[in-house]
Amino acid sequence: MKVGMFQTPFNRPERDATTVFDWAIRQAVVADEVGFTEMWVGEHLTLDWEGIPCPELVIAGAARLTKNIKFGPLAHLLPYHHPGTLAIQTAWLSQILKGRYMLGVAAGAYPTDAALAGLEDTSTNHARMFESIEMMQKVWNAQPFRQEGEFWDAGYPDPSAPGAHMRDTRPYGGEMPMAMTGLSAPSPSINFAAERGWIPASVYAGNRFLRTQFDDYARISAENGFQRDRSIHRVVRDVVVAETDAAARELAIEGGLGRAWKEYLQPTYERFGIMEELMPDKSVDTASIDGEYLADNVWIVGSPSTVIKKFEQWFGELGGPFGTLLIYSHDFIDNPEPWEESMRLLAKEVAPKLP
Amino acid sequence: MKVGMFQTPFNRPERDATTVFDWAIRQAVVADEVGFTEMWVGEHLTLDWEGIPCPELVIAGAARLTKNIKFGPLAHLLPYHHPGTLAIQTAWLSQILKGRYMLGVAAGAYPTDAALAGLEDTSTNHARMFESIEMMQKVWNAQPFRQEGEFWDAGYPDPSAPGAHMRDTRPYGGEMPMAMTGLSAPSPSINFAAERGWIPASVYAGNRFLRTQFDDYARISAENGFQRDRSIHRVVRDVVVAETDAAARELAIEGGLGRAWKEYLQPTYERFGIMEELMPDKSVDTASIDGEYLADNVWIVGSPSTVIKKFEQWFGELGGPFGTLLIYSHDFIDNPEPWEESMRLLAKEVAPKLP
Repeated sequence: MKVGMFQTPFNRPERDATTVFDWAIRQAVVADEVGFTEMWVGEHLTLDWEGIPCPELVIAGAARLTKNIKFGPLAHLLPYHHPGTLAIQTAWLSQILKGRYMLGVAAGAYPTDAALAGLEDTSTNHARMFESIEMMQKVWNAQPFRQEGEFWDAGYPDPSAPGAHMRDTRPYGGEMPMAMTGLSAPSPSINFAAERGWIPASVYAGNRFLRTQFDDYARISAENGFQRDRSIHRVVRDVVVAETDAAARELAIEGGLGRAWKEYLQPTYERFGIMEELMPDKSVDTASIDGEYLADNVWIVGSPSTVIKKFEQWFGELGGPFGTLLIYSHDFIDNPEPWEESMRLLAKEVAPKLP
Repeated sequence: MKVGMFQTPFNRPERDATTVFDWAIRQAVVADEVGFTEMWVGEHLTLDWEGIPCPELVIAGAARLTKNIKFGPLAHLLPYHHPGTLAIQTAWLSQILKGRYMLGVAAGAYPTDAALAGLEDTSTNHARMFESIEMMQKVWNAQPFRQEGEFWDAGYPDPSAPGAHMRDTRPYGGEMPMAMTGLSAPSPSINFAAERGWIPASVYAGNRFLRTQFDDYARISAENGFQRDRSIHRVVRDVVVAETDAAARELAIEGGLGRAWKEYLQPTYERFGIMEELMPDKSVDTASIDGEYLADNVWIVGSPSTVIKKFEQWFGELGGPFGTLLIYSHDFIDNPEPWEESMRLLAKEVAPKLP
């Protein structure tokens, strides 16, 4: 199993932008140093607990401070960008990173983000996303075209036109690696990724959802002629490791992870109907869920040997392992070392002992 | 006189994106160290000699490596961005930089850039720019609105709506400092800036243009109730300093500056009718202009004492000094030290001795 990070970021609302930006870059540097293979960065124009409106800025800020780790927005919210401009900018960043770049895309689900684009709801967002993807891929081909779409006009110029002074605008290596996240079952996004050979990133919402996403992805990618196994799957789940089980539990429950769940994620997941899926025992009242319950049942928390055992059990429940675990970054800004040690233990002591 | 830099960038077309990005950040770090007060970064989606499609990425990359210098795109090409999204992103970067940020805007003049937005020419670009500015300024106010424009729909959500989790999206300090460049006389852009109290940045194209821009800006800003003197003016001109006149001439003519003029700027300026304005003696044939002529007549080149004399003469011709000289960054990537010493001499030995 490889390990990566999803920097949504879950930072406390009272953090200022400089703190959010600096923390994201520090997390990237640590992740690269301890051997995380990738870091994904969220995009939300307006949200307080997920306060990065432009993941490219974080990635650009970390580009020269990291060596091996790959980066990707997860996800650019396509309805809120011009497809031509976004295609050019993401391709340039993929060139800067010499291929250490993947592009996650999404339709956008939050009304306060959509309002910036004058959208009163998100009902047309999927149609906008599909049109944007089509236009971006044409731009990445770097062949002249002009298209009047339903939501945008886009095109690519003729590089041989008189007076044209054009650079190579294509993504590094000629193709843009693409990704989408899934948070439901069946997940239209995971299925869409499967049709195109894109990377699937499953936000953990219980084993039932996850198995459905694995099975759907395998079936649909085969139907579309892609040879894919579970090594392409990313699964996002909270994992905290410390020298002892007790220390790991305290770090998880009392730190940024516990606070983010209590104040933001639990209410949000309840609204989306995800809390019930996350509970192995459906007879428990969701209102009674606290940090202790989450540490035992939803997050994976413990010493390295405990966490290894929990992963082995989980893989058994899933019918096998998957490619890359993505942990969320949480707000350990006031005392980063134990959290960074958790990242190190996960990458160095846990992951190498798992299939 | 204060000194700043305009990183358009003039990099040789064969440079890859990593080199362009790294050089821009190195220039920012040096500029900050030697005392430059500001650095502006260009935006062109497609151009080879001006190969930065996303100035925010350079600014984000330099943010944590610099202390005092202010940054600004010069300029975001407004027709190619969604105004709501761009307003949010630029405000976030101004927050990250705690106010070390100013925003230059422009309409975009290059057909190969416009083609990405499906535009067959740039005839509507000014109308698009005006609508974008209006919408961005409303977004920066952070008050709920919804507007169906001619080119975009935009809006701002109600932060008190049920389920809304919004952060403070306003620019640092509540207002976004704005700038525009002028390259003609009269310059509609400089006049537009004067009407709004924005920063005027004049690209040097001879004294006649410059005096017109100074006079127009003074008159129009007064008519609009702004108290402004020449200290707000930025003037962009190539300046090279070395220990001796001979060394400065060689650095200018044989280095990246000379090559950029020969291969890119002279042909471009001839197309825009600027070369004739730049020549003090109009009887000279523009085709005969070479590096020697430019070093004597168009750039300001020499030892510190020579350059000081040339500035004093220039200020005399202009009827007084102006606020900030911006030098272009040029491609001295293969041998940066003499160029960086030129920057240091300009900031430390020349500028402090000028009014």
